[in-house]
Amino acid sequence: MNKNTTVEKIKAPELITAGWLNTSEPVTLASLRGKVVLMHAFQMLCPGCVQQGIPQTQQVFNEFDPERVAVIGLHTVFEHHAVMGRDALEVFAYEYRLRFPIGIDKPNEKQVIPHTMMTYHMQGTPTTILIDKTGHLRLHKFGHVSDFLLGVSIGTLLAEEVSDEELAASADDQPEETQSGCDDEGCRI
Amino acid sequence: MNKNTTVEKIKAPELITAGWLNTSEPVTLASLRGKVVLMHAFQMLCPGCVQQGIPQTQQVFNEFDPERVAVIGLHTVFEHHAVMGRDALEVFAYEYRLRFPIGIDKPNEKQVIPHTMMTYHMQGTPTTILIDKTGHLRLHKFGHVSDFLLGVSIGTLLAEEVSDEELAASADDQPEETQSGCDDEGCRI
Amino acid sequence: MNKNTTVEKIKAPELITAGWLNTSEPVTLASLRGKVVLMHAFQMLCPGCVQQGIPQTQQVFNEFDPERVAVIGLHTVFEHHAVMGRDALEVFAYEYRLRFPIGIDKPNEKQVIPHTMMTYHMQGTPTTILIDKTGHLRLHKFGHVSDFLLGVSIGTLLAEEVSDEELAASADDQPEETQSGCDDEGCRI
Amino acid sequence: MNKNTTVEKIKAPELITAGWLNTSEPVTLASLRGKVVLMHAFQMLCPGCVQQGIPQTQQVFNEFDPERVAVIGLHTVFEHHAVMGRDALEVFAYEYRLRFPIGIDKPNEKQVIPHTMMTYHMQGTPTTILIDKTGHLRLHKFGHVSDFLLGVSIGTLLAEEVSDEELAASADDQPEETQSGCDDEGCRI
Repeated sequence: MNKNTTVEKIKAPELITAGWLNTSEPVTLASLRGKVVLMHAFQMLCPGCVQQGIPQTQQVFNEFDPERVAVIGLHTVFEHHAVMGRDALEVFAYEYRLRFPIGIDKPNEKQVIPHTMMTYHMQGTPTTILIDKTGHLRLHKFGHVSDFLLGVSIGTLLAEEVSDEELAASADDQPEETQSGCDDEGCRI
Repeated sequence: MNKNTTVEKIKAPELITAGWLNTSEPVTLASLRGKVVLMHAFQMLCPGCVQQGIPQTQQVFNEFDPERVAVIGLHTVFEHHAVMGRDALEVFAYEYRLRFPIGIDKPNEKQVIPHTMMTYHMQGTPTTILIDKTGHLRLHKFGHVSDFLLGVSIGTLLAEEVSDEELAASADDQPEETQSGCDDEGCRI
Repeated sequence: MNKNTTVEKIKAPELITAGWLNTSEPVTLASLRGKVVLMHAFQMLCPGCVQQGIPQTQQVFNEFDPERVAVIGLHTVFEHHAVMGRDALEVFAYEYRLRFPIGIDKPNEKQVIPHTMMTYHMQGTPTTILIDKTGHLRLHKFGHVSDFLLGVSIGTLLAEEVSDEELAASADDQPEETQSGCDDEGCRI
Repeated sequence: MNKNTTVEKIKAPELITAGWLNTSEPVTLASLRGKVVLMHAFQMLCPGCVQQGIPQTQQVFNEFDPERVAVIGLHTVFEHHAVMGRDALEVFAYEYRLRFPIGIDKPNEKQVIPHTMMTYHMQGTPTTILIDKTGHLRLHKFGHVSDFLLGVSIGTLLAEEVSDEELAASADDQPEETQSGCDDEGCRI
């Protein structure tokens, strides 16, 4: 069933963010090797996100050991930027009692789509992304994902056995310059 | 079933607002005599409002002839005022495709509770209010109201027969000074 | 909203039954004058009945004073008669914890549709029927009825005021021979 | 999350049945090696089965390639036997449009619990059972299982890699006499 929505074996690009909520340190995908990662890209005023995606993401966050499944929110604002700033997002996260780390996708000076959203070629919000233990993109889906499909996908990735050698290799293969913010303005050395 | 949640025969106080969306003219309760009025008091970042109250209010708005049942939203901001201003509310109404008139409860200079919310002694959001054809408060409930209870209550008020004399009398009984904004700062003459 | 599904002012025909569950006495509509009557016609192996209609009917039964709203089930078997007999129905009612009276629509010797179902021209199951305080048919709908619509309809009928004279008149207007079972085999005198 | 409900590495006992629906041949677990097996044990008049378990089982049946996930129903009647016989079950399966194979758990002459239900020590209905590619019991849960948990569990079992040698070994390890029906009447040699 999950063939159509799976992108196999492309390295998940590192996040490019302007800040974080619910964490003292910025989260990098590189730091999550060995875990399955669920990333929920949303906008706080997007009905499909608020009514379906966010509650589903909270369910995953509540049910799994964070050492096995890491849950990340990503606030990918591409419209109405003025009323979805960090202060509004903080109130949203407080009112909806969100506890998982939420990155703020870095705004793009030249266009409305923020950096990570563009790098991932997201079609809009909500977008559900799953990354496997070695940092590869395995699910990338715009719109609603059923609890059942999400469960099957997470179960599949959890069951994959990864050797210490593979993990060590996956930790190294993210070039330093990409992690520090390679974007359409060019890559910093 | 609806005994507990019904407040009988108190005149519904006039709305005290700082602006309106989805209408060219401010809406007054006095102008709605002869109709059953559903007023949904909400905050745009209140989860119970967004996930239950707002969709239910839209359903009522979609299913009834507006000549029989008038639907009004009331944005009663009592916390996080900075991120729930008019500009944010407009985006919210646009994204959620709300078409019914939405009043902005008039902020209170001396405390966080806005004027209409205080006048109605609301306990929080969401609050569901039903007003009968002669302008009396008939349902006033904080929190979730089931579709079934709301339906029974609206059906009951719709079925009540009101004579032309009663309607005419109800139009007159709202003192002018109250309509123009009697509040805790005192009443203007 | 409820114009389309309302049949106005036709006298609800008396029930023609072969037995009852959850009551020591057969229930007649004539005995329920002064109350709003919800009658849910179902088959115990009909998915739409079991998954939607029966839970909704139980909700109405649980929420209303039985002196104001009388709830009746009617088992209108028109297919697979062999496995939906009284013994099976009793198990069904026990397992689903149904407490309201359930009439067994009288089987018809000459065809598959039972008597009451034919008299009411029902299109299938589930069928939801509302009868007002004076015994008139006011809602007659095949398939799913939303909680909201059912609530509005019950509220409307509850609010109708009926004088003692009207009630007394309604008690008399059901001819005796019809009550005792006028069917396609002919009417007993 | 699925630690509590997982029984690890016990061989799933073979089914002991009195008949099958939706298949020309009886289904044996031995014939399903190499596939993940979902077995839903139910009774046709059990509310939790009809309102939750059966629709969930149909969803799994509809979404997966039957070469990867085999779905089986098992009608484990332990009460009201008279009205849940094969003829009634056939009507139930027809009305609910069930297409997956359904075994009829073999009635036990000496007590109400049928054979397979007893062998599996089921606590009641619905019971959800998952068997891995090598025929081991991996989930055994009485009552409601969330779509999410069921998905995670199926995904986990699907992802497990099994060598041809392991599969071949698993095919052989079911003693012939057990397959032919070892029960409380004694074991045939």
